[in-house]
Amino acid sequence: MEKKRCAGFTFAGIAAGIKKKGGRDLGLIVSEAPASVAGVFTRNRVQAAPVLLDRRRVQSGRCQAVIVNSGNANCCTGDAGMRDAEAMSRHAAAALGISEDLVCVASTGVIGQPMPMDAVVLSMPQLTNALSPEGIDEFAEAIMTTDLVPKVVSVQAEMAGTPYTLMGVAKGSGMIRPDMATMLCFIVTDLAVSPEVLQKSLAEGVDRSFNRITVDGDTSTNDTVLMMAGGRSGAAVRSDPEQAEFQARLDDVLIRLARMVVKDGEGATKLVEIAVVGAASEGDARKVADTVAHSNLVKTALFGEDANWGRIIAAAGRSGVPVAPDAIDIRFDGVMMCRNGMTCGNEAEKAVTAVLKKPEYRIVIDLHMGTASASVFTCDFSIDYVKINADYRS
Amino acid sequence: MEKKRCAGFTFAGIAAGIKKKGGRDLGLIVSEAPASVAGVFTRNRVQAAPVLLDRRRVQSGRCQAVIVNSGNANCCTGDAGMRDAEAMSRHAAAALGISEDLVCVASTGVIGQPMPMDAVVLSMPQLTNALSPEGIDEFAEAIMTTDLVPKVVSVQAEMAGTPYTLMGVAKGSGMIRPDMATMLCFIVTDLAVSPEVLQKSLAEGVDRSFNRITVDGDTSTNDTVLMMAGGRSGAAVRSDPEQAEFQARLDDVLIRLARMVVKDGEGATKLVEIAVVGAASEGDARKVADTVAHSNLVKTALFGEDANWGRIIAAAGRSGVPVAPDAIDIRFDGVMMCRNGMTCGNEAEKAVTAVLKKPEYRIVIDLHMGTASASVFTCDFSIDYVKINADYRS
Repeated sequence: MEKKRCAGFTFAGIAAGIKKKGGRDLGLIVSEAPASVAGVFTRNRVQAAPVLLDRRRVQSGRCQAVIVNSGNANCCTGDAGMRDAEAMSRHAAAALGISEDLVCVASTGVIGQPMPMDAVVLSMPQLTNALSPEGIDEFAEAIMTTDLVPKVVSVQAEMAGTPYTLMGVAKGSGMIRPDMATMLCFIVTDLAVSPEVLQKSLAEGVDRSFNRITVDGDTSTNDTVLMMAGGRSGAAVRSDPEQAEFQARLDDVLIRLARMVVKDGEGATKLVEIAVVGAASEGDARKVADTVAHSNLVKTALFGEDANWGRIIAAAGRSGVPVAPDAIDIRFDGVMMCRNGMTCGNEAEKAVTAVLKKPEYRIVIDLHMGTASASVFTCDFSIDYVKINADYRS
Repeated sequence: MEKKRCAGFTFAGIAAGIKKKGGRDLGLIVSEAPASVAGVFTRNRVQAAPVLLDRRRVQSGRCQAVIVNSGNANCCTGDAGMRDAEAMSRHAAAALGISEDLVCVASTGVIGQPMPMDAVVLSMPQLTNALSPEGIDEFAEAIMTTDLVPKVVSVQAEMAGTPYTLMGVAKGSGMIRPDMATMLCFIVTDLAVSPEVLQKSLAEGVDRSFNRITVDGDTSTNDTVLMMAGGRSGAAVRSDPEQAEFQARLDDVLIRLARMVVKDGEGATKLVEIAVVGAASEGDARKVADTVAHSNLVKTALFGEDANWGRIIAAAGRSGVPVAPDAIDIRFDGVMMCRNGMTCGNEAEKAVTAVLKKPEYRIVIDLHMGTASASVFTCDFSIDYVKINADYRS
């Protein structure tokens, strides 16, 4: 298999001794020259020090390196936490011989505990020595916490006849576990894109991907999506149609990464799309889809492979949208289970039970109130989710 | 032990063959004469036929009997469901020799399946024969679904020197499982209370009790709280101070029943009060308390007896209230674990871990933004919750 590369970028991932159980826990992405940068961050009022630092740094529109650790979220750590985040960027900048202002920082792991800064500082030579154009897989490993698999997506495309690469890496197996500080995503491209266009495209793409998935309904203190565009391919986004083309490719990468996060959801055994159609507005469709996708009763029924459409219609009923229960149809991968708010009978239930045994399927809820629609990806809620989250720190 | 009675009321609970696994499943409460009635019902848009029927019946302010079944929720059953609910009230009325309009109906159990009306109709003579002033415990059993224990509270008090009784019975062990159609509560008293005062008092009491508990965050299609005041004691609520006295007693009964429901929460091993203090407004306090009380991450940590305050502060951060993370203190039964948004260290964690082993405790979150407060009762989220809800229908 061809090694994944993105011209102008190098990557590293090493074991620095931050994670208690060992393994890679410190990563670095470096661009050969300052790149355009964009960032989307958690909306939680409680925000980790690296998030607060990056919010400030991406304002300039330029970034050359990102240093990331797992094993400690550097959150709820007060002024010392901010000094530690700044120190991480300063040490990386010194080792790379670049300006501190061009370095972003991300952390994920336990919250409320001081960063083991000695481990970070002492590992800096080893980290920069490990940088390689083919190091993305090691980087992907270094940012994992409870993730069972690393998550990397790389696509090749052309812009006005010039080939370019979009490469993304993510970690996260709950939309959040605050003490794991959840979802991190880094995207690099060798396209040239202005910081303004990059920010707009990234925000739109995140809204269509990471904002449409749920594992457990919580929101992390550390969620960060950073993107760097270096321009080394010679291809550039200049016109509106080129921007649309770029957006489509970026959406594809983000959606694939987002689905990988749900599929790797803590304890998850199913990847399920909740599609609401026939809504009066997109906002309504999304409210219903979100409520169903977050319902513990629905998610435990998905785990139990139980054709329990009653829980779905009841979740729709409490979504705040003025649904008409007697108008609702519910299909599982095309099999109608509920028509006009009532059961389609035992034969339908048998067919739906077969669908529920599949690892991936789609539930369509037709409200028959209009033409708007929205989708959310969710996973089932298993005994292992409780085990993982009850035992995490002990 | 003295038998629980409320002058002027009789109760029955029998096995009618509605529940698949057998046991009592049909109950009846009868007042010797038409009583004042008040009702509070689910806000879910999807509402079971008996809920729609009772909403209409309580408008008159008078009620003489309530017939209740478990094993079938009579929800998502279309026009036939409404005909069945009406038939239940008609058959009960005929057996008692009273007007159909004076009978309310409640159902709880699986949704989307037709009511086994033959079982109800054929059991009517047995049901009315079983009526007894001391039958409340049999009635309490007849309305149980996944409940592990029946829930009855009876208090004696005096109004202007005349003794009276308030007696309540509830079922529910998740705030909802739509296919169990969750929470039912019936209160009777031998006080005389006008329907208007009764409705106002019941609505306020429910807001301070059943609206302040959560097991799994869902809302049932069948939630019903009905109260009847017969007046047989000779005591009456006439003045504002008397109403306040009555409200305090009613609140006490409702809060005790609500706590029993959480304590019997599906798979629950802990009863935990989430108290938010120092909020800018009561609305803010409630939003933070609700978000923390519903967080799966918090609830799994409570199950794991893990002093994971990071999940609590992160839930507060995503509540929508503009909290100041650096100002937040968190105490577990008086032990400070987090001060100014930071950990109080290992000694504090040891003390908190001891608190977490208790079956009941209180978590106080001080926002330091004002003087308002609010409390919610929640339970932990255990492996058994998932087992119960994954396997329920199979």
